[in-house]
Amino acid sequence: MAQTATTTTGTATTKKWVYLFHEGSADMRDLLGGKGAGCAQMTRAGLPVPPGFTITTEACNAYYQAGRQFPPGMWEQTLEALRVVEQQTGKRFGDPQNPLLVSVRSGAKLSMPGMMDTVLNLGLNDETVEGLARLTNNERFAYDAYRRFIQMFGRIVLEIPGERFDEAFEEIKREVGARQDTDLAAAALRRVVARFKAIVQEATGSPFPTDPYEQLRLAIAAVFRSWMGKRAVDYRNFYKIPHDLGTAVNVQTMVFGNMGDDSGTGVAFTRNPTTGAKELFGEFLVNAQGEDVVAGIRTPMPISKMAEVLPQAYQEFQQIARRLEETYRDVQDLEFTVERGKLYMLQTRAAKRSAAAAVKIAVDMVHEGLISREEALQRVEPAQVEQLLVPQLDEAVVEAARREGRVLARGLNASPGVAVGKAVFDPDRAETLAHTGEPVVLVRPETVPDDIHGLIVAQGVLTARGGMTSHAAVVARGMGKPAVVGAERVRIDLRDRSFSVDGRTVHEGDWITIDGTTGEVFLGQLPVHVPNLTELHDLNELLSWADNVRRLGVWANADYPRDAERARSFGAQGIGLCRTEHMFMEEDRLPLVQQMILAAPEAARVKRALGLDAHRSALRAARQRAEEQAGEPSLVATELAELEQRVAEAEAKLHADPAWQQYKAALDQLLPIQRTDFYGLLKAMAGCPVIIRLIDPPLHEFLPKHDELLVEATELRVRGNNPQRLAEVERLLAAVNALREANPMLGLRGCRLGLLYPEINEMQVRAILEAAVQLKREGVETHPEIMMPLVGNIEELRRLHAILGEVARAVEAEAGVTVDYKFGTMIEIPRAAFIADQIAELAEFFSFGTNDLTQTIFGFSRDDAEAKFLGLYLEEKILPFNPFQTLDPEGVGELMQIGVERGRKTRPELEIGICGEHGGDPASIAFCHRLGLNYVSCSPFRVPVARLAAAQAALADRQEPVARDR
Amino acid sequence: MAQTATTTTGTATTKKWVYLFHEGSADMRDLLGGKGAGCAQMTRAGLPVPPGFTITTEACNAYYQAGRQFPPGMWEQTLEALRVVEQQTGKRFGDPQNPLLVSVRSGAKLSMPGMMDTVLNLGLNDETVEGLARLTNNERFAYDAYRRFIQMFGRIVLEIPGERFDEAFEEIKREVGARQDTDLAAAALRRVVARFKAIVQEATGSPFPTDPYEQLRLAIAAVFRSWMGKRAVDYRNFYKIPHDLGTAVNVQTMVFGNMGDDSGTGVAFTRNPTTGAKELFGEFLVNAQGEDVVAGIRTPMPISKMAEVLPQAYQEFQQIARRLEETYRDVQDLEFTVERGKLYMLQTRAAKRSAAAAVKIAVDMVHEGLISREEALQRVEPAQVEQLLVPQLDEAVVEAARREGRVLARGLNASPGVAVGKAVFDPDRAETLAHTGEPVVLVRPETVPDDIHGLIVAQGVLTARGGMTSHAAVVARGMGKPAVVGAERVRIDLRDRSFSVDGRTVHEGDWITIDGTTGEVFLGQLPVHVPNLTELHDLNELLSWADNVRRLGVWANADYPRDAERARSFGAQGIGLCRTEHMFMEEDRLPLVQQMILAAPEAARVKRALGLDAHRSALRAARQRAEEQAGEPSLVATELAELEQRVAEAEAKLHADPAWQQYKAALDQLLPIQRTDFYGLLKAMAGCPVIIRLIDPPLHEFLPKHDELLVEATELRVRGNNPQRLAEVERLLAAVNALREANPMLGLRGCRLGLLYPEINEMQVRAILEAAVQLKREGVETHPEIMMPLVGNIEELRRLHAILGEVARAVEAEAGVTVDYKFGTMIEIPRAAFIADQIAELAEFFSFGTNDLTQTIFGFSRDDAEAKFLGLYLEEKILPFNPFQTLDPEGVGELMQIGVERGRKTRPELEIGICGEHGGDPASIAFCHRLGLNYVSCSPFRVPVARLAAAQAALADRQEPVARDR
Repeated sequence: MAQTATTTTGTATTKKWVYLFHEGSADMRDLLGGKGAGCAQMTRAGLPVPPGFTITTEACNAYYQAGRQFPPGMWEQTLEALRVVEQQTGKRFGDPQNPLLVSVRSGAKLSMPGMMDTVLNLGLNDETVEGLARLTNNERFAYDAYRRFIQMFGRIVLEIPGERFDEAFEEIKREVGARQDTDLAAAALRRVVARFKAIVQEATGSPFPTDPYEQLRLAIAAVFRSWMGKRAVDYRNFYKIPHDLGTAVNVQTMVFGNMGDDSGTGVAFTRNPTTGAKELFGEFLVNAQGEDVVAGIRTPMPISKMAEVLPQAYQEFQQIARRLEETYRDVQDLEFTVERGKLYMLQTRAAKRSAAAAVKIAVDMVHEGLISREEALQRVEPAQVEQLLVPQLDEAVVEAARREGRVLARGLNASPGVAVGKAVFDPDRAETLAHTGEPVVLVRPETVPDDIHGLIVAQGVLTARGGMTSHAAVVARGMGKPAVVGAERVRIDLRDRSFSVDGRTVHEGDWITIDGTTGEVFLGQLPVHVPNLTELHDLNELLSWADNVRRLGVWANADYPRDAERARSFGAQGIGLCRTEHMFMEEDRLPLVQQMILAAPEAARVKRALGLDAHRSALRAARQRAEEQAGEPSLVATELAELEQRVAEAEAKLHADPAWQQYKAALDQLLPIQRTDFYGLLKAMAGCPVIIRLIDPPLHEFLPKHDELLVEATELRVRGNNPQRLAEVERLLAAVNALREANPMLGLRGCRLGLLYPEINEMQVRAILEAAVQLKREGVETHPEIMMPLVGNIEELRRLHAILGEVARAVEAEAGVTVDYKFGTMIEIPRAAFIADQIAELAEFFSFGTNDLTQTIFGFSRDDAEAKFLGLYLEEKILPFNPFQTLDPEGVGELMQIGVERGRKTRPELEIGICGEHGGDPASIAFCHRLGLNYVSCSPFRVPVARLAAAQAALADRQEPVARDR
Repeated sequence: MAQTATTTTGTATTKKWVYLFHEGSADMRDLLGGKGAGCAQMTRAGLPVPPGFTITTEACNAYYQAGRQFPPGMWEQTLEALRVVEQQTGKRFGDPQNPLLVSVRSGAKLSMPGMMDTVLNLGLNDETVEGLARLTNNERFAYDAYRRFIQMFGRIVLEIPGERFDEAFEEIKREVGARQDTDLAAAALRRVVARFKAIVQEATGSPFPTDPYEQLRLAIAAVFRSWMGKRAVDYRNFYKIPHDLGTAVNVQTMVFGNMGDDSGTGVAFTRNPTTGAKELFGEFLVNAQGEDVVAGIRTPMPISKMAEVLPQAYQEFQQIARRLEETYRDVQDLEFTVERGKLYMLQTRAAKRSAAAAVKIAVDMVHEGLISREEALQRVEPAQVEQLLVPQLDEAVVEAARREGRVLARGLNASPGVAVGKAVFDPDRAETLAHTGEPVVLVRPETVPDDIHGLIVAQGVLTARGGMTSHAAVVARGMGKPAVVGAERVRIDLRDRSFSVDGRTVHEGDWITIDGTTGEVFLGQLPVHVPNLTELHDLNELLSWADNVRRLGVWANADYPRDAERARSFGAQGIGLCRTEHMFMEEDRLPLVQQMILAAPEAARVKRALGLDAHRSALRAARQRAEEQAGEPSLVATELAELEQRVAEAEAKLHADPAWQQYKAALDQLLPIQRTDFYGLLKAMAGCPVIIRLIDPPLHEFLPKHDELLVEATELRVRGNNPQRLAEVERLLAAVNALREANPMLGLRGCRLGLLYPEINEMQVRAILEAAVQLKREGVETHPEIMMPLVGNIEELRRLHAILGEVARAVEAEAGVTVDYKFGTMIEIPRAAFIADQIAELAEFFSFGTNDLTQTIFGFSRDDAEAKFLGLYLEEKILPFNPFQTLDPEGVGELMQIGVERGRKTRPELEIGICGEHGGDPASIAFCHRLGLNYVSCSPFRVPVARLAAAQAALADRQEPVARDR
């Protein structure tokens, strides 16, 4: 919290604008900025920080409010603080004998790297430079510092283009025949200083300010001004940082690591930021400045070597590092300088770290009693968890491959992990090869739903086209398979079964390795490292803490038993979405599915012409009336008999129809296949809920592609040499045309199919119930949940609920066994959310289909948007993020809230989850937590991610500070 | 309001279940039903109504609550009432000397025609029939009444299948050699009675009940029971009538019109229901019963002839008719019987009437001081207004055509009115022929957007496929052109340029007449009657009253000046939607538009590669900063100069690019064309607001069709004889493929096009502003409103607003003239409604695009839904109505409400309208009124409809009773 105070200066009482380091503390970031608060904290802790002070962010804001004038009293307080620093250092500002030099740096509350300005060596002029030379006994050092100062000050404070100094410097180097900066001797540097001063005179019309106080005043103003500079404003707009935070200004005594072999400079981490091991880790350079470490002119030594070179400073540094870690209760990234044997701390901040290190450090620190379990959970990014679980290439392997020129291309890292296999170019071939035990990588220009059997058997997928949410990307992520998509330089020749990149060609059967974590594609078989949750002890422990904290359940989307098993091993508590259509796409079923689809429209037409549904529903109504009404039983009986006869007659006619027979035969063959599918899935998830979605996609997706048929038909027609095949193709084409839609996403699919062709849903429900019955007899507990997709008005659900409920009860009655099943719906059409109160009267659970909700709420067809304009929208920040990856709270989120409120109003115990792509996205998981959903469902590999993200969301909710572990 | 009372019967005080006719009144419909309240009102007014009484609807409900038992006291009250009726008639129930016969009829609050049961002649048995014979001196009459009674009672009360009586009756007719019922003499009828009684004995196991009180008791119970009969329950479910209203039972003295030449029966209207003329209009039959009029055995005489036959009764009837009209203040539909010279009124109810009559009667009654203007407005159905305005075929013409066998086919009446013209089968040919002055009717299997030029020149359109909201139907309604769509028996042969129906063939150039009001298609030129609003004085007067009452503005959707003029003549107060893309489809523009589209992607790519937009927006931002910030002007100037140079360089490179040149050349040629378009439209609507929507549809709609190109390319490839054309077609195909989308409705269109290709929108805005400038110079006042389609997030609007605002200001600056223009948006994406508060910060008006909102809220692609499943949904009542015709209040409506509330919160004066198809639908207009919109916009021909509907919506709002006219 910003602390403000007043101070008495001269005669007037004014606000306190300036804090000496020892007056501040770590919790004053708002007022002192990150850097200022860090130095204050270190100073307060008695660490050797070069003395200095901080001008507050409030002063910056006051500066702007006053029309770019220092607020009253600020300058006076600055001078007072400078006096104290002089006393602390024994040096004096502007004193030619023993000059105090300072750095002037910006430091906002939030880090804005490189966005604002810094001036070093301030206080130098023609006199003090001589003093510095004398004191250091190093004229070259002093003049180098001086020319650097003029250059920096000129560019930053006086806003003279930097090139002018650079050009002049290069000129002098040419004049004296110097190759590198370090080749310049003191005399040459004096010439540089003179030339730089002339540049300043010329550019500003005034001489370079030699008065150190004038230098300081201008430098402070320049830092304030940099807060509203174009770069900084753009940066804050981009990151949505408020413009009124202001920046603090830090004025600090300069220390020099380049004053001889008893000096040096270094950077270090308090623990290994790659492995997380508890050891000092960093680099050190003797007789050098920070810049030299960065420039890479000299190779630094490992920090441990410092123990030999500067043993005393090293020991002190070790102790300080330990203390800072304890103070900040996190791994620190430290900067320090040793000036003539004396250690100075310049910066401390939380260290960036690898995924593995983040997990290990968090868990270790809990065991060390340094942080609580809850804090540990907040120290790891959910995305880091994912990185730990996918197959990986060790860095050494990648580097070797690069050296050997094995890198073929780079695409989008659509689904993490590494896949190694033989390149294949069509899904059928992939299946054939895979069945012989060969690992394959499917390579396609892009994938479509009926490539699914190829994706299923492949180790991974590489496409030349498509974005992060293209079919290949989504399906691969769903399956936890590595994918590199949109590798645009890959040219695929499907006829030749090969692809080439820049003249290099990969043929079918050649080995390739794709890294979905980085997007790289390699030639050949690279060795892969595959982690495993149980072997990752630290992660396992962390996630077990997460499970104790989170309120959201974490379920997985899985269509096959093997995916369900994997999800379970990752901690999934249920299956939130089993897409039955994926099962239909498999090779052995597709012909049956196609037979069913081709016969369905005519079969349905015949059935409707017979009025069978009307007769049946009349019969159902009459039976219900018969139950409800005691009176006139004989009359009702007459009516019932009549209706029963009508139904029987219509059924007999229907069963004699050839289209119906074909349709029914296909369904009858699909029933045992689906029963086996569900048996496997329910068994793998024994004891857990399993949501099975009834058939959803438009039927044409199961048929051959329209354009291919049209081309073949046209070719056959022109050639005229195969009338038989032509007739066949034309028949297929007519069927595909009849199913074709202008906007299939908004067309005949989901429950609309169920209403037109109820027999398909009936078969699926029967298969589910029969599988559950079988398992119950085997002593396996199951909780199947039957989900209707695309419901948008209550009558759709009411009718399906009646028809399918009858099937379920019939199976139970036949078997004499009851099954613990539920009926529920997707909420994926905006209208469904509006009428959620009505839907909840029948539905026992809701599952938000946020992919479709995003499509309809935004009016974005996912495939089209990605290909045509979403790239532009994201690039130009028309949209702040891809709404197909992260839930849009303003539109989709508000509608979800409406759905949750209304659904729970009708049925307070309603089970509500989400099964879209968003279920694995941490920001979206946090949103779902706040909405009060029961669970999120995501792809198996994202389950650990979701467990952590759900825990973090729960922690973000808590108001009270959490207790320490132990 | 239901009035309830109690009455004292014997010892206990019970509820009043029975009302004598003189105890009730017209406002007791809830309690007495429609028929009971009507008889009560007539009785109370002293009219000659056969005495009787009504058992209340509450008694019916109590009957069910008591487990199908009469409630306590009801039967006693019935007997008491019967005593009073005996006194009134001088007859006695069951008295063989002077028997009272009654009818027992159901009568619910709401009319449920034919759904419930009636028993006539109740009270007859073997003794009373003899009395009736003696009294009427007509044995045949008496026994005919008796056998009818047993038959009716048997079927309705005893539930014996009616066929058994019918068969027995036919048997006796055969036995006695009678051809018709009337051939049966009294003796034969006695045999019928005996046979009928045997049937009853056989079917029920008991003899026919001879006790009149038992008959009455059973009949009342049967009427109560019929309320819950299958037919009635189904009917109420269908019409959503509550099941707990109950039915009343009316018991009324029988009167007979068949007692000789001083008797008769008739029906009449108090005014002519076809023309509205103030004259008695109806039919009368001497010596006949109501059944005879219905059966059509004898030809009835016009009611006026009754003056000659039964002058006294006629005079009395005239007076009564006048009194009833005055009492009910509406035209009445009357039933009456004259028994031996005495007039009895049996029924009075509001008369059904033609559209013309409805308007004339309403206006006349205001002038007569009978009703107020407000009441008059509520007496006309909005749909009737539409019927009056479209070109029409006089009934005589249609009948003649039918006689001559000119009726070819029948389709859906998609857009009302009659079109006469020569059949043409493609839009180009339509244009050619029309340009020679020939009227044409476009005949197509179905239409697509680029048939538009054919639709524009055609008198009307006939399609073989498509539903009420197919492209042809929507466009034709929009243009006010007659359309018959989905005429499935019409087989079109496009190659032969002909269509045939059942063997008859119509070739190109043959005359046909289509009636979009009825859906009929005729061969040849039928004479047409075209009404005109100014000549329809009554309608004009009525609509002027509507204008004084309504709060909603009524605007029109019009793309061309001639449509705008027509809309204005119908009373439109503005243009709510001008679809600029329709202009692009016209023959002279299409090549330019195609050139623009083909070059646009590459031109945009080049522009993006040059970073021109980024440079320009940086420059814009810098200019803004320069304006806002006084400080450091020299520094800003430097930055400005640098940015200006960058922009200039990028522009120079862009202008040298060939794709850009092609793109720009097309735009430059389109500019003056669009300017002329807008000039005409703004001039036609001088002084009124005109909303012009910037280009909206996906670009591929302007290009040749994909499948046709694919077929041609394949053919050319196989034949290999025209490589030049092949290359051309393949180039086009590639371009079309690049623009092709999986779901174009959710793809690259609307403002997304504007962001990708801003130059198109810029051209359009320039054309609008330049047209307005030109008109201002000519002294014409204009109010153009520029509308951005498909906005879904605020950045889209912010950017377009900036770019296009700049263009508008530039035109104003160039001309030195200001234009009163507005910028606004469609709200047609659900997300737009959610963020309406943000949108309203920039948008000065909203226009709800309810077609697209319906598509996205329901997840229905309109074309696909109509073709694939919406028919089933409506037929099976899965949806209660077609949401593309009538606004869905639950989903779309709630979202609109959100949009209105949030939009007005930000900008209270926000102008909000609706421009979807719904703008012309009365139910939707009422909804828009309640939402508080400013206006509805509809097709020109629906403007008068909307004026009336808006007035009715406003009246429905008023709570206070309205004052009478004069």
